[in-house]
Amino acid sequence: MASQEVPKTCKVILADTIAKKLLGEVREQLVKVQGANGARPALAAFLANDDPAAAQYAEWSKKTCEENGFDFDLRKVDKEVLEEAIVTANQDDAVDGIIVYYPIWPTNQQQDRYIQETVALSKDVEGLCHTHLFNMYHNVRFLDPPTNQKKSILPCTPLAIVKALEHLQIYNPILAYGNRLFGKTITVINRSEVNGRPLAALLANDGATVYSVDITGVQVFTRGSGIRALRHQVLDKEGWGLKDVLPLSDVVIGGVPTEKFKVPTELIRDGAVCINFSSYRNFDGPAVKEKASIYVPSIGKVTIAVLLRNLVRLIANRKPEGNSEQ
Amino acid sequence: MASQEVPKTCKVILADTIAKKLLGEVREQLVKVQGANGARPALAAFLANDDPAAAQYAEWSKKTCEENGFDFDLRKVDKEVLEEAIVTANQDDAVDGIIVYYPIWPTNQQQDRYIQETVALSKDVEGLCHTHLFNMYHNVRFLDPPTNQKKSILPCTPLAIVKALEHLQIYNPILAYGNRLFGKTITVINRSEVNGRPLAALLANDGATVYSVDITGVQVFTRGSGIRALRHQVLDKEGWGLKDVLPLSDVVIGGVPTEKFKVPTELIRDGAVCINFSSYRNFDGPAVKEKASIYVPSIGKVTIAVLLRNLVRLIANRKPEGNSEQ
Repeated sequence: MASQEVPKTCKVILADTIAKKLLGEVREQLVKVQGANGARPALAAFLANDDPAAAQYAEWSKKTCEENGFDFDLRKVDKEVLEEAIVTANQDDAVDGIIVYYPIWPTNQQQDRYIQETVALSKDVEGLCHTHLFNMYHNVRFLDPPTNQKKSILPCTPLAIVKALEHLQIYNPILAYGNRLFGKTITVINRSEVNGRPLAALLANDGATVYSVDITGVQVFTRGSGIRALRHQVLDKEGWGLKDVLPLSDVVIGGVPTEKFKVPTELIRDGAVCINFSSYRNFDGPAVKEKASIYVPSIGKVTIAVLLRNLVRLIANRKPEGNSEQ
Repeated sequence: MASQEVPKTCKVILADTIAKKLLGEVREQLVKVQGANGARPALAAFLANDDPAAAQYAEWSKKTCEENGFDFDLRKVDKEVLEEAIVTANQDDAVDGIIVYYPIWPTNQQQDRYIQETVALSKDVEGLCHTHLFNMYHNVRFLDPPTNQKKSILPCTPLAIVKALEHLQIYNPILAYGNRLFGKTITVINRSEVNGRPLAALLANDGATVYSVDITGVQVFTRGSGIRALRHQVLDKEGWGLKDVLPLSDVVIGGVPTEKFKVPTELIRDGAVCINFSSYRNFDGPAVKEKASIYVPSIGKVTIAVLLRNLVRLIANRKPEGNSEQ
């Protein structure tokens, strides 16, 4: 017995590990779509705010793009001419995909929403156009039913978390595609329109019971008893809070954009999987490592890999044969 | 949306699928241990009771042995001369492993236990000698610490269920070896000395919280908070029953040897994994398929594959270099 040690209980998985695997797949897929000597795909990135975090994120995206065979064209524009600049990029055949750094008008979400809809569907690498969002919420995976060759694009951060959960084997590949989270209970802390709500919907559409938590309360997203429905349904859980949902959860996902918020470690189940997608640390690292089986402290690099994955899908969607793989 | 269908929710996995994969590994391992032209290993099987189920099981074992490059020598003996026959086989270099069909004295478990201990440790393919059992309960994996070349043998049915759970991806390979069930809650219905108790110990030693249920009540097997201990500990749960543990359980394992017993489907969690190792059907098949994510209706063929896996390990243990793989 002296020769055996208790293995460390918490495995910390860095975004980099997950991103590298995805980027390998993206490069392979790009060769399939473009041929080995195809043109470098071009991403036009619009920076119209003064947020240093956005500028930093753009910098990282540029580096990842260029390392993986993509062109990244950062276009710093005044917010008053942003709409015209996007329309020009929509019409420019040399631009394969468009990304815009939000928020542009922090006090006017409707105006940001208007800009999201300005991006052409065929260049919407962020999956934020209404058609893409509608398909995601309705668990519709293709833009061209019943042919089903052109894939609908999923928003980057939620999809990055799905990819992380696949990497962590929380998606069980033994189960049928579309049901691979059946039996899992997941809490998502954040219900924003860009991240938390789409994420809860995606996870519920794959079979999970998802508790979506924000300051207004708790909602549960499911596909009903025995996951008999195609898409999720949402119910309010009156009077519920983190104290009710965390002890039930196999997976806890934090995305609260403030320094102050921390997930209460004592409520987390022994052996839970904890993932942070906020730019702040939503978990108390040392404490969570004493309790979780897996801890993913950040997700940003996976989000950039997913952005390139979406771009390759957009390019494939423009070809007559579309996306042949699942 | 008309072009998409809700995928069937419950995946039924047959023992045959799991057994075939294991038998492939066993044949590979045998070539490694014996060389490509090595002698066929020989299993001596002692049938000293009149149980038609045992005779049938021996028949299946013989077929699987012969299909996979092993000799199976069924020896029908009177129970009064069984002990001497085992001693002879212990001393016979032509016999690589020994299996005995229990019960021999259904009303005298102590006498069966005496026979189990009569089998030589080096030929105990069923993992029922005290040294093997002691190591299993104490989560000690080798017979020769600190060299750790000679693997301790685990009992066949419990190990078959572990192998099934690995196949079903309930063991998470992302986690450290030895902790791969951390965060999982499992109910085992049966606490016999041959099957249920060793199974609960094995699963708890791998990090699970295991509710072990029999007619005397519920015990919980864990490695403590944060799985900080090397081996499991056991606590009685006074007054608990299936109604308390089934709704908490990710995995439900039935091993009750009667026609009458059925796991109450309404208590099983939506999306749970259900496994039956009884020779009777402990689950109501049609109902459980409406609720479970995965259902394994029987395990017998996996048990036979594990028997051959153990036999190859015994042979490797006799070589100076022992078992080099994990």
